[in-house]
Order: sequence, then C-alpha cells, then structure tokens
Amino acid sequence: MTERSLHPSNLTASWRDNAAGWTRAVRTRAIESRRLATDAAILAAVAAAQPRHVLDLGCGEGWLTRALGEMEIQAVGVDGSGPLIQAATALGGGLYLELSYGELTAEPEAAGRDFDCVVANFALLEEDLGPLLRALHRIMTPTGQLIIQTLHPLAAGGAYADGWRVEDFRGFPGPENGHTWTPMPWYFRTLGSWIELLRATGFQLHRLSEPGHPQTGQPLSLLMVARRDLSLSNEGVQP
Amino acid sequence: MTERSLHPSNLTASWRDNAAGWTRAVRTRAIESRRLATDAAILAAVAAAQPRHVLDLGCGEGWLTRALGEMEIQAVGVDGSGPLIQAATALGGGLYLELSYGELTAEPEAAGRDFDCVVANFALLEEDLGPLLRALHRIMTPTGQLIIQTLHPLAAGGAYADGWRVEDFRGFPGPENGHTWTPMPWYFRTLGSWIELLRATGFQLHRLSEPGHPQTGQPLSLLMVARRDLSLSNEGVQP
Repeated sequence: MTERSLHPSNLTASWRDNAAGWTRAVRTRAIESRRLATDAAILAAVAAAQPRHVLDLGCGEGWLTRALGEMEIQAVGVDGSGPLIQAATALGGGLYLELSYGELTAEPEAAGRDFDCVVANFALLEEDLGPLLRALHRIMTPTGQLIIQTLHPLAAGGAYADGWRVEDFRGFPGPENGHTWTPMPWYFRTLGSWIELLRATGFQLHRLSEPGHPQTGQPLSLLMVARRDLSLSNEGVQP
Repeated sequence: MTERSLHPSNLTASWRDNAAGWTRAVRTRAIESRRLATDAAILAAVAAAQPRHVLDLGCGEGWLTRALGEMEIQAVGVDGSGPLIQAATALGGGLYLELSYGELTAEPEAAGRDFDCVVANFALLEEDLGPLLRALHRIMTPTGQLIIQTLHPLAAGGAYADGWRVEDFRGFPGPENGHTWTPMPWYFRTLGSWIELLRATGFQLHRLSEPGHPQTGQPLSLLMVARRDLSLSNEGVQP
C-alpha cells in the first residue's frame, strides 16, 4: 500500500497484471461474496429490466455478458484491459470489445447504440466518472436503465469519506504460476456521493437494494437501478 | 429492553412520558449530534427548497417550526403527543396542532393544505409508514418536496435488517425532577428499505446527503430530499 500503488494510473495497469489471476478467480467462482450473493443479484436486476440490448461496462473476462447470452439477452462487453478482453473472446458467448473508459467517453458509439440497459458490475473504480456516465446517454434508449453494483459503503470499513484506496487482493486466491497480485487503486465513494453522481449525470435513482450475506445479513453490495432523467434539457447531461 | 418496552404501542406512550425531559434536552441543545450537525443540516435542506408553506411532521416541542418562522417561512407543526404540543404552543413561534399520524392519515387536511414542503426530522419511527406518506400527497403542491432526516444506518449498529429496536436514552441527560427516561421502541430500516418506502408511496428520491461528525467524519444522519412522482397515476399513490 505504497504511495506509488495508490496512484490512479496504476488502476489500468493492475487489470493487465492481474488478468490471468482474475480470470481464474471469477471462472472458478473463488470470490465468496460473488458466489453467495452478488452474481445472482446483478443477473436478477438486469433480467428484471427485460432488456433487448445490454452494454456490460467493464466486463472483465466476460462472465456477465456470457450469462446474459445464455438468457437470450443480446449483450456487448467492453473493457479497457486487453488481456481480459482476450480471455473473454477466447471463451466466447458474446461480443467483446477492447475499449477504455476514455475511448468510450470520447466515442460511445464505438460500443454500439440503442442500449436499453447499461450494467456496471463492480466496474466503476475511477474517481472522475462524470464524463463517462454523461456520454452513455448518447447510446441509450430514452427508457434505458443504468444498473450499477458496487461495494457497499458499510462493507468497506475505514473512514467514511470519498477517496482513493488500495485493494491488495489479500482475500483472493493466489494466481497460478506463483504470481502475486498487483495492488489495485480504487476510488471509494459514500452513498451520498453515488446518488449525487447519478443526479449530476442525468440519471434518477429508481431502486436501490443491498444484497447481503445469506447467513449474517451483512450487506455485501449496493445495487442501484437508475433511469434517464428525461426532464433535463440536453445541456443538462453534456460533459 | 424488556419485551414489553419493545411493543410498538409504547412508542406513543414514551413521547408522553418523556415530554418534559425531551423538551429540556432539545432546548438546552444537550444532544450532541443535533448540535454538531443535524439541526443545521435539516434547516439548510428546508431553506434550499425555498418553501412558502411547510408541514413539520412530528414536530415535538417545536424547535424546527420555530426556527423556520424566524426565517420568515410559514410552518405548521403537528405531533401526536399532547404534552409536546403544549410545550410547543407555550413557547410559540408557530402554529402547533395535536394530531397523531393515524388522525393525519385519515384526514390530512386537518393540518392544512398546499404544503410545498413536508419535513420529518427524526420523526418517522413507526413500522408502517406507507399510509401516512401516501396521504401526504393530498395536501402537497405538485412540486412539493418531502424532506426526511433519520438516523444513518451506519450509525445505528446492530444487525443490518429492518426491525423494532429500543432507544433507552442512555446517552441523554437525565430529565429534571429525578425522573428517568421511558424506553422508546423505534423501527430501524435499512437504506434500501427507506428508498423503497419512498418509491412505494409515490415519491422519487432527488438528493441524499449524510451529515457527519465535523471531526471524525462518521455519518450521523441520512437526509433524503424527495419529490412527488407525478408520472404515477392517482391509483399509484393511494393507500
């Protein structure tokens, strides 16, 4: 947890370094919170939207895009990590595109258009998400839903304030080949900051749920379903 | 914290028993969280709405109604506790009415009409709040705001699940005359349940903030600003 590892530029790098270990952890269902609650919660939330065309933002190795495909829901997965997109494409089950959030913000149409659902499953780890979320309006249908699952502020511990933190993957299984995990900087935001981010980027929170541990009941994630606020003028949602 | 004190019927009774001690605690500003953060937060939230006619739901001894009056904002305070309404009226500074939530639900017009702001400051302690919140639509302007401040789920401790709890006032100063506090049952709800309650009663969450301790930053309250969801049919907001 050095000052160097806290630097935001290491967020992108960590997803290259950790691609193999991450792919293995997801595909062997080694992450307890995902196995117990959050995978099913995000699938149920997307299914409830009854979408025809889903953008899976920060799709990683592609499990969610793939699971949606199995439910006959057309999905496109985008991720800025080349190795993760390669892993996703190798296993198939959907369309995967290597696009960073910067590229997506500049030209969202590169991912497609007319999405009636955009889903980000533990994938919004940057500090400045405003430009990306605002750009999504250009490729979403008027009634499209934005579904975000993220770490529950109660589960994160530490000071209750927005700021960069470091995930050291200590609770994760070690990657094969004896490699160690590269620490990943990520930006913690309070509940109030999440809701303000939605409001400021032209979305209205519609539902909020808190998938919890089936035994202890402790919340594991915050799951927000937002709709485009069409009462805003176009200027209201420009970057 | 006996089974008897947990019984919801004791909620109303506790506000009669504790009226003198509560009035003294509020008026001497003996409650640290209110002094440090939450009094100013609710006043700022109501002022930001620039209302002309405010309903102060569960006004207690009347400080908020009185403070709004000093800001030249016309406010009506209602409370189900006779002794608290007597204390409010004795000090003056606003209009105070003794009305229980049951009476208000049955005939909201008894409090007035055309409210462009309804505020509930740590005053929604019942389990079944749906009928009350739905009834408010009848006396609110179309663009009226509902502002709720309540204990932050992070600050409450204990199991993270909806349910009755008991406030024993252990952290409060003892009432004068050597009286002790009567424990007060109150219904804890998770963040998700608060948001769902708003949605189910025809309100849309507009903003959410988390007034915190000025030194530690720990959130002390959840402050929700909601608007009437006028996209709903009338049936959507009936009890």
